[in-house]
Amino acid sequence: MDFFRVQTTQQVKEIIKDITPLGEEEVALEHSLGRVVAEDCIAPDAFPPFDRSAMDGYALQAKDTFGASEGTPTPLEIGGEVRMGERPSCPIKSGGAIKIATGGMLPQGADAVVMVEHTQIIDEHTIQVLRAVAPGENVIHQGEDLKEGEHILEGGHLLRPQDLGALAALGKGMVRVYRQPRVGICSSGDEIVPLEAVPQIGQIRDSNRYTLWALTLEAGARPFHLGIARDDLKDLRKRLEEGLSQGDVVLISGGSSVGTRDLTVEVIESLPEAQLLLHGVAVSPGKPTILAKTGEKLIWGLPGHPVSAMVIFMILVTPALWRMGGRKNWDAPRPWALKALASRNIPSAQGREDYVRVKLQEQDGTLTAIPIFGKSGSISTMVKGDGLLRIAMGSEGIQEGEEVEVWPF
Amino acid sequence: MDFFRVQTTQQVKEIIKDITPLGEEEVALEHSLGRVVAEDCIAPDAFPPFDRSAMDGYALQAKDTFGASEGTPTPLEIGGEVRMGERPSCPIKSGGAIKIATGGMLPQGADAVVMVEHTQIIDEHTIQVLRAVAPGENVIHQGEDLKEGEHILEGGHLLRPQDLGALAALGKGMVRVYRQPRVGICSSGDEIVPLEAVPQIGQIRDSNRYTLWALTLEAGARPFHLGIARDDLKDLRKRLEEGLSQGDVVLISGGSSVGTRDLTVEVIESLPEAQLLLHGVAVSPGKPTILAKTGEKLIWGLPGHPVSAMVIFMILVTPALWRMGGRKNWDAPRPWALKALASRNIPSAQGREDYVRVKLQEQDGTLTAIPIFGKSGSISTMVKGDGLLRIAMGSEGIQEGEEVEVWPF
Repeated sequence: MDFFRVQTTQQVKEIIKDITPLGEEEVALEHSLGRVVAEDCIAPDAFPPFDRSAMDGYALQAKDTFGASEGTPTPLEIGGEVRMGERPSCPIKSGGAIKIATGGMLPQGADAVVMVEHTQIIDEHTIQVLRAVAPGENVIHQGEDLKEGEHILEGGHLLRPQDLGALAALGKGMVRVYRQPRVGICSSGDEIVPLEAVPQIGQIRDSNRYTLWALTLEAGARPFHLGIARDDLKDLRKRLEEGLSQGDVVLISGGSSVGTRDLTVEVIESLPEAQLLLHGVAVSPGKPTILAKTGEKLIWGLPGHPVSAMVIFMILVTPALWRMGGRKNWDAPRPWALKALASRNIPSAQGREDYVRVKLQEQDGTLTAIPIFGKSGSISTMVKGDGLLRIAMGSEGIQEGEEVEVWPF
Repeated sequence: MDFFRVQTTQQVKEIIKDITPLGEEEVALEHSLGRVVAEDCIAPDAFPPFDRSAMDGYALQAKDTFGASEGTPTPLEIGGEVRMGERPSCPIKSGGAIKIATGGMLPQGADAVVMVEHTQIIDEHTIQVLRAVAPGENVIHQGEDLKEGEHILEGGHLLRPQDLGALAALGKGMVRVYRQPRVGICSSGDEIVPLEAVPQIGQIRDSNRYTLWALTLEAGARPFHLGIARDDLKDLRKRLEEGLSQGDVVLISGGSSVGTRDLTVEVIESLPEAQLLLHGVAVSPGKPTILAKTGEKLIWGLPGHPVSAMVIFMILVTPALWRMGGRKNWDAPRPWALKALASRNIPSAQGREDYVRVKLQEQDGTLTAIPIFGKSGSISTMVKGDGLLRIAMGSEGIQEGEEVEVWPF
């Protein structure tokens, strides 16, 4: 069964690349923050729809101000005021100026605005311009921000505050977005008890339920609980089937013990449509990871150790959820990595990728990554950490002072 | 009125530092992601509560394996199996081994675990150990992750997935957190119409409503709408009072035009308790910013230009909301800045901080920041950008190739 050999993260990324994004839905613009847009958004009209003033001041003809200075100010006749939100009633003639506020519509005949700070009021009919303005100065021209027919956003883009603002300016009250993956979360193991229980000796409270729930939310997906499965084929299968019927993805954590590791695979293989895609990944921590699909749905078997489960979630499950949720840039646990210098040597075994929890310290503009050593069962190492440092597969380790990439968390 | 001179961001930070965090409330652990914890969290018990195996294998006495190797394996007698979630029934004696899975409780007398990969089964009663293990190897000791009485989290810490996991492991189902600031959002200006309206000539759709709403959510606060205020003292005051009665913070955007700038200040000054703290900030874009307080509540007058309003929100309003929401590290728009090289010279005026929208490009491990020039009224410059580059107050600009800090957005 060569297919089930341990695979590299690069090979897993090839599997993720083949995931088909989920369907689409429409949401109100106001509820679209953090959603992934499913269509190319094109400006139906130019924005702004008319020439606007970018400053408080006076609309005028630039040529009238040529040569104006504090020493030789140019007098202009005030021809009125632009009322906000209305088309200015009278055009500008040479030698005239019309009072205008930021955002006001430029009157016909005007080609520039002089800032109020560069004028002096002589009387109610006259101002003096103290500085020359060039044609177009302090004017936002029609379509200068967005041209009619211009591509604003590409399908697959994650919607940020400014994207919502641009769509609002163009009157787009509803947005087509990808559906968010629904993720069923199941912890497994006879030793696991719910948070509310008082653990008996030999028992441990379920913490993966909370970490995986939170990571699912952070990945823009919608978690739901499948409870705690006993180390029992029937119980696990019942929960897995429930998860597959309600969700797009099922996460089973635990089952990395001798008996249950077999159990997760056994349950997956008992589903008629299921196909095992991955059985072990060349990553530390997190090696005993399983990935299978049934139809378009995914089943992840994650290690039970909280750190291992979180690392695999961040480096593989998150990209898979992004891909499933239609996101274009899905191929990294975070959009950007920080650069830092290693505070000391960090050994690593060749033939696997290592993810080391680090504390980050900034001093005099230099960011230092201090590794936190500890077992992959120790969630406190994640709590004390600020991010994950990646040591590539071919590397034998990091040298003190070497520049490294850190994904903050 | 020297007090109302233009202030630096450093001076505004001094104002923000004086903000008193809001009150506290209890939330269920499951709903605490992204909330700010309001108490020091201390481990009530050691975690794990007993010595556990970190691997699948056999619990044994390490000294029995000394000298074992593939060439000279050590035979041990299998004394049974640790059942998950239960106290092992029989202790280990010298020469004996008990089968154990990851997370299983170490039997009395055992001090190490040999990985199953380093053993060979001879018959149902005997295994051979192929590699020596040291005392404590593959064991997670009681309290190794969290000691009883250990500080896990400090008050003021933003709760992340791993923090939820650690609290779950310790049985903390409810968490004391700071209340989230409620933020009333009001756009002002006679030229502003709601998204649903078809703008008449001279009118512009309200986009700040959406950008400020989304930024408020990203800052961990709770936005609510106050609608669009006309350039009218009574209307603006009505909305401001409604915002102050329902919320902790009111944002009024717009009002940067000649008439309405005075209007926002006039409305604030008409409130008997209100105190103007800031009238202009040495930042571009975003200079015409107002900050006032009435009791413990804050009123921000933000520029109407969408880019200016967003920049001021990111660099000043976000820190203020974090501070109000109890967050310890409130003094930056993002927890970490990226380092990048400027793609070209970027001029800047002395005496003010400049924030330039940049596109980020990564090539061969080098991150380049490409400035996007454009008016502060052009929201498309924010849409095309990946982050904000800061040019310090004393700087005359950035040189091509210079290392700069970028806050990704």
